Amino acid sequence: MVPRYSRPEMTAIWSPESRYRIWFEIEALAAEAMGQLGTIPAEAARVIREKGAPRAAAISAADIARIDEIERETRHDVIAFLTWMAEGIGPEARFMHQGLTSSDVLDTCLSVQLARAADLLIAELDRLLAALKRRAEEHKYTPTVGRSHGIHAEPTTFGLKLAGHYAEFMRNRARLVAARDEIATCAISGAVGTFAAVDPRVEEFVAARLGLKVEPVSTQVIPRDRHAAFFCALAVIASGIERLATEVRHLQRSEVREAEEYFHPGQKGSSAMPHKRNPVLSENLTGLARVVRGYAMPALENVALWHERDISHSSVERVIGPDATITLDFALARLTGMMDKLTVYPERMTANLESLGGVVHSQKVLLALTQAGLSREGAYRAVQRAAMATWEALGRPDARGFRDNLLADAEVAGKLDAAALDQVIDPQRDFRHVETIFARVFAAG
Amino acid sequence: MVPRYSRPEMTAIWSPESRYRIWFEIEALAAEAMGQLGTIPAEAARVIREKGAPRAAAISAADIARIDEIERETRHDVIAFLTWMAEGIGPEARFMHQGLTSSDVLDTCLSVQLARAADLLIAELDRLLAALKRRAEEHKYTPTVGRSHGIHAEPTTFGLKLAGHYAEFMRNRARLVAARDEIATCAISGAVGTFAAVDPRVEEFVAARLGLKVEPVSTQVIPRDRHAAFFCALAVIASGIERLATEVRHLQRSEVREAEEYFHPGQKGSSAMPHKRNPVLSENLTGLARVVRGYAMPALENVALWHERDISHSSVERVIGPDATITLDFALARLTGMMDKLTVYPERMTANLESLGGVVHSQKVLLALTQAGLSREGAYRAVQRAAMATWEALGRPDARGFRDNLLADAEVAGKLDAAALDQVIDPQRDFRHVETIFARVFAAG
Amino acid sequence: MVPRYSRPEMTAIWSPESRYRIWFEIEALAAEAMGQLGTIPAEAARVIREKGAPRAAAISAADIARIDEIERETRHDVIAFLTWMAEGIGPEARFMHQGLTSSDVLDTCLSVQLARAADLLIAELDRLLAALKRRAEEHKYTPTVGRSHGIHAEPTTFGLKLAGHYAEFMRNRARLVAARDEIATCAISGAVGTFAAVDPRVEEFVAARLGLKVEPVSTQVIPRDRHAAFFCALAVIASGIERLATEVRHLQRSEVREAEEYFHPGQKGSSAMPHKRNPVLSENLTGLARVVRGYAMPALENVALWHERDISHSSVERVIGPDATITLDFALARLTGMMDKLTVYPERMTANLESLGGVVHSQKVLLALTQAGLSREGAYRAVQRAAMATWEALGRPDARGFRDNLLADAEVAGKLDAAALDQVIDPQRDFRHVETIFARVFAAG
Amino acid sequence: MVPRYSRPEMTAIWSPESRYRIWFEIEALAAEAMGQLGTIPAEAARVIREKGAPRAAAISAADIARIDEIERETRHDVIAFLTWMAEGIGPEARFMHQGLTSSDVLDTCLSVQLARAADLLIAELDRLLAALKRRAEEHKYTPTVGRSHGIHAEPTTFGLKLAGHYAEFMRNRARLVAARDEIATCAISGAVGTFAAVDPRVEEFVAARLGLKVEPVSTQVIPRDRHAAFFCALAVIASGIERLATEVRHLQRSEVREAEEYFHPGQKGSSAMPHKRNPVLSENLTGLARVVRGYAMPALENVALWHERDISHSSVERVIGPDATITLDFALARLTGMMDKLTVYPERMTANLESLGGVVHSQKVLLALTQAGLSREGAYRAVQRAAMATWEALGRPDARGFRDNLLADAEVAGKLDAAALDQVIDPQRDFRHVETIFARVFAAG
Repeated sequence: MVPRYSRPEMTAIWSPESRYRIWFEIEALAAEAMGQLGTIPAEAARVIREKGAPRAAAISAADIARIDEIERETRHDVIAFLTWMAEGIGPEARFMHQGLTSSDVLDTCLSVQLARAADLLIAELDRLLAALKRRAEEHKYTPTVGRSHGIHAEPTTFGLKLAGHYAEFMRNRARLVAARDEIATCAISGAVGTFAAVDPRVEEFVAARLGLKVEPVSTQVIPRDRHAAFFCALAVIASGIERLATEVRHLQRSEVREAEEYFHPGQKGSSAMPHKRNPVLSENLTGLARVVRGYAMPALENVALWHERDISHSSVERVIGPDATITLDFALARLTGMMDKLTVYPERMTANLESLGGVVHSQKVLLALTQAGLSREGAYRAVQRAAMATWEALGRPDARGFRDNLLADAEVAGKLDAAALDQVIDPQRDFRHVETIFARVFAAG
Repeated sequence: MVPRYSRPEMTAIWSPESRYRIWFEIEALAAEAMGQLGTIPAEAARVIREKGAPRAAAISAADIARIDEIERETRHDVIAFLTWMAEGIGPEARFMHQGLTSSDVLDTCLSVQLARAADLLIAELDRLLAALKRRAEEHKYTPTVGRSHGIHAEPTTFGLKLAGHYAEFMRNRARLVAARDEIATCAISGAVGTFAAVDPRVEEFVAARLGLKVEPVSTQVIPRDRHAAFFCALAVIASGIERLATEVRHLQRSEVREAEEYFHPGQKGSSAMPHKRNPVLSENLTGLARVVRGYAMPALENVALWHERDISHSSVERVIGPDATITLDFALARLTGMMDKLTVYPERMTANLESLGGVVHSQKVLLALTQAGLSREGAYRAVQRAAMATWEALGRPDARGFRDNLLADAEVAGKLDAAALDQVIDPQRDFRHVETIFARVFAAG
Repeated sequence: MVPRYSRPEMTAIWSPESRYRIWFEIEALAAEAMGQLGTIPAEAARVIREKGAPRAAAISAADIARIDEIERETRHDVIAFLTWMAEGIGPEARFMHQGLTSSDVLDTCLSVQLARAADLLIAELDRLLAALKRRAEEHKYTPTVGRSHGIHAEPTTFGLKLAGHYAEFMRNRARLVAARDEIATCAISGAVGTFAAVDPRVEEFVAARLGLKVEPVSTQVIPRDRHAAFFCALAVIASGIERLATEVRHLQRSEVREAEEYFHPGQKGSSAMPHKRNPVLSENLTGLARVVRGYAMPALENVALWHERDISHSSVERVIGPDATITLDFALARLTGMMDKLTVYPERMTANLESLGGVVHSQKVLLALTQAGLSREGAYRAVQRAAMATWEALGRPDARGFRDNLLADAEVAGKLDAAALDQVIDPQRDFRHVETIFARVFAAG
Repeated sequence: MVPRYSRPEMTAIWSPESRYRIWFEIEALAAEAMGQLGTIPAEAARVIREKGAPRAAAISAADIARIDEIERETRHDVIAFLTWMAEGIGPEARFMHQGLTSSDVLDTCLSVQLARAADLLIAELDRLLAALKRRAEEHKYTPTVGRSHGIHAEPTTFGLKLAGHYAEFMRNRARLVAARDEIATCAISGAVGTFAAVDPRVEEFVAARLGLKVEPVSTQVIPRDRHAAFFCALAVIASGIERLATEVRHLQRSEVREAEEYFHPGQKGSSAMPHKRNPVLSENLTGLARVVRGYAMPALENVALWHERDISHSSVERVIGPDATITLDFALARLTGMMDKLTVYPERMTANLESLGGVVHSQKVLLALTQAGLSREGAYRAVQRAAMATWEALGRPDARGFRDNLLADAEVAGKLDAAALDQVIDPQRDFRHVETIFARVFAAG
């Protein structure tokens, strides 16, 4: 976790304070369930809650240091915490944790933390989606050149570009909701998952109160395929961030300049060069995407634990649990801000679209000539002649555009007059299905 | 694709013949849609189907060589195919592919192939699930030691172990169904996805006939986050295979011998050593899991294509499309066969369970003593005394078990007599919630 | 292994024929060593060589089918091979493989194959280096704009760009030589590496004859960290390919057009659009780089085998051994061809360099003004004034360049006259250390 | 960076204080070089050093907060640092950083940090090697069973096992030395690496003083293939840690118990179960290995920067630079401590070795019978008879061992009498080449 790439709300989920509060809640709920079942005195459960809750709520740095001190002695984090709680709760504390195993607390706590983290990420995705939708509608009909292989292909609109990213992030949202759902389970099932010393109804009670589902079958732990799927979902989202960041980096190139990351009015460029407005946010996001993606591998390697559990997953999760969610949260927020304020240059888009003399319209002319009666081969040759002439004259003062070269071609002119041709190459024709696509994409949103 | 790790049905999906047949189907359906819309003569669509279908159905190695030859000339695979089709269809062939771009055909074909591959994988998962369920029920109450950290913990049943893997593969099945759903989209939207030269209804028609959904917004291509999510799902499944394979490898260790991969009656061991029955299938599966997992990374890197598309994803998919699905299909089938025929040794399970003199029951005794009135600390000390005595005498001829050491302890005996103790350490008490867990796991299956 | 991305010489290394010939060579050499040591009759070793060598040399598809048939029966590949050899060698065959374990043959064979593969890759790297050097020298002083963040920064030369890639591939060559060295070891040490049944001198003999080093300590296998390091080296090389491919893709963008992959005279573009010359080779290479990189992960996971060995590495290596080397070999050859024939457009480079009115020279002017006595702040403000004026007028018919704006600025003009300024912004000044850099890079090459 | 997995010396390398001190050193050295060359006044360089050095040395948290504050304003970390330095140095500060670009400072600083980190790692590797060597020599002739596939194979010694790991870590040390060498370069070459505004001799001077090599050709940055190779080397080392950790985890299994992580005298087990000594250190190391391995992927993706540089690598390196080196440092130290104090149980090793009645000696008997004149098939059948009889009686009170079963076999007894057989199966025969192997491994160490 690099402070520079962290936001406080997400970071807080992973703080020791937060973890201990969740531990207490799990223990208190388990005690309450056992109190109801008569496994422990109901009164004990009441005292645990009454005395423990304020203690957990007010946990301080000094308390945490005290717990750490106990842990150094006992070499066991959950026992250290329980000992510290007992110091405040008194004798009833002996009824805490009865029949539970540490993993019951640790794994259920991780579920709560990951679910909360997912909620923050979903909220941030919603902000991003709102920004993308707003900008997509703003530029629904802003013409720009569509590129395949980095080469001009045919006209599209900037709104359509953004609609594609919006649709991808809607899918990413759905993936994250599914991943959150997978991860949000509770296990209170004892040392090897048999409920040998704890009633399954305790698990049901705790799960319900925490908004989790019951883990149908645990070993000692909640199975790690759930977590692997979760981190893979984050990796796919990170890759979506990279795709949009890459688009912005391309658009901001000196030779393209169709859009730019917002540049603060008083902001000095990195030098005296006014053009030196670097797409540093999107480059930064590209790197952060790599980082988040990299965490998927250890998460996948965590699945194959030995027998009913080994603890190799734990050190991995101490790292990637916070690091992946905090980094992705920061990246999503940065992307939202970036897209929200992206400076768009429609006039540059138009200039680029027209920069090759109009040959981006060649396919439509080809089809029109075929429909007007030319053979496929004949039409192809005619279009190619005009296109080559246009291409070769590009940049010359006397350069003639594709349209004029076509009209100057007898074979073409015999089939299409200027009016007909203008209709064929009218960019608005390219956009006649924009509405359909927008309806598909934004209908549900 | 290594022949040794391939099965014919999955391999066939990725053959050139299969691919060309799907291409033809897409082109023929698109022509039919255009025929209905009047974009091309309906008669042309009929001829394309009538003459093209048998040609595609009967495509031979010689035909493929011919297409390859054309491709070497034109350096374009789709054009090569269309040229070859035209040789059989005649003049109406010029109405094929009108307004389409190659990616419309290539990407929709990949969707069909991945969906078919997913169907085979789901079917194989179902066979695996059936095998796991059968074996789980067979060993529902076969006692065995549950292990955490590779160390004996408490009793569980072999059926419970298998139920855990069953539940994981049910989740994997759900993930694959979701991934198949994601991948099964159709794009017929032209050079930059604007439908500039093809009506969106053509896409709807083709999609419906192929059992695909319409891609709401494509660029030139179907967005690659779908494919990344698909290959990540395969990686999670592979990791589940690894977990079960790892369990079997552990169970078959010389010192454990609780289960063994089936050994053919006439099969020679790798040497004269009768114990040399190696878990080669599960080791092989462990390696194949690594291979499949490794394909997730390039799939994730494929997401961030440039602008409306670049073709960098293509070489990746030519490799991992077949290799990941063929390898996973083989691995699932191998795992199914292995689990179906796994030789289980309940007597060895019992022997191991008892091999530490009964100290695996210590936690239950601890709880019983506490409930019988001993303080937590007192109970702990008493249990520890008996356990240490048991542990230190292990293997000695005069070794006394944990039960007897407990009964010989005055403090314990004052609280629990032999009958009470036997009830406490009765393994069946450990299993009283097995039914509940089985109901949770197999209810839906 | 995708045929489309394979070259015959590398593919041949991984053929069954090749593998069996290496197996025979190892067995024959081991027999010869044992014959010399008197472990087996020297005459037997002679017969094995005499009768076995032509049999191995002439191994046919039918022979391989026969070996496969025996393997299906014995479920053991090395035994199947030995049985087939024995059919040709006769009774002396019983002296083959004495005291050896299968892994002695399999692992040493893999070393030979990987070493040969590395040799081909090194040879291809040398061809690539030669091409890069030639092009770098050709364009040693071809001015082009250097870009950071995709934004114009300062002038550089196209030769310098290529020199950077040359230097990277020289490092890659050194890495591969080191990786080859690591992998080229021989183990003939028996079932658990103790030489219990085979003399260490046999290993030394075989190693020497095969041009390998002796593995100082093997278990049953050659340790897999060697192979992990090898595949990591390939991954780093693949990433270098991606960097150069990415450069070419950028240079070929419609808006940049500073270089293009060679376009065959008769080659049809992907459509009627003459500008549609797509950087398909470099995009393809980008994808292949992802594929090769992906193989590093399973290779790293192969290191932690259980105890003296488990066979989980084997299925991984059957896949990535051929696939990684064949793919990288193809990619290097493709890159060499691409760079060899790359069409470079110096005039476009100059046009782009000047496209921002000369503001790329601002840093040098800033320094010159400071040295001419302006304060740092004053110099900065003056340069910024001129640069902003230049930038804002870009594209206007009356646009004035940076140079002229500077000269029109009283504060600047008071310090630098036209002659002095022209000297400052002379691009040749930027290139005065090109020779030094070239000397550093190409001195050793 | 998780505090729990961090050690202070390595963490200090990555502190802001450390970074700023290195930055100052680079700037001061560059100024000194320029002073010597006459580019700036020699006196200025002297003042920069004289006033700047104590300021850098004494940098406090308050200073860092001040620098951060300036950065928030200027959005540029190097400028913020220079501004803060200038506040202490006075007017001569304007001669700092002349002709340099930020990356000159940032990249050279990263080289220094990675080289220092590598030095700490190498030192820790040396401690690990010493521990392994000591334990290997201690157990040079401690018999234990060698296992392939987790199945007993033949006798080996525990010292040989450790020698194998020692040899692997010697290779890892060599890899790290090579990786350190690769990474230890200095670039002071200006905005696009052309030395347009800085003399190459400045770079040479700074490099020499910092103990770095000159980067032969930089763009704006030091090429990232160097860093990728560095992090790959860490990944290979991590995998070696995992292999040794996995061995210990296996040895400590309840059924194996041949070795155990050291258990503190007063340490409470995780429960009342005395056998519950969990291999938590080696499990933890297994997880940390996954984490370090995962960082290789983003490092490899960092290689293909755009043109002369983009800044996407930066966020990756801010994470993985500290995290990979700190985690690996901690893991190596933990592993060293673990191996140093590993409790070894030679008697359990012997017990396990003999647990299968002696069939682990079957291969040697087979060879001896063949050499005594039995046909290969006859010998095999005889050995198999005795082995099967042994195997099937395992655990029965009247069980007869392999040796006795052999002697009871007429065919065997006709060839080998008891004395001869005892010589054949004498475990010391298995160990007669241990010395040779030790000499190979430890000769250089």
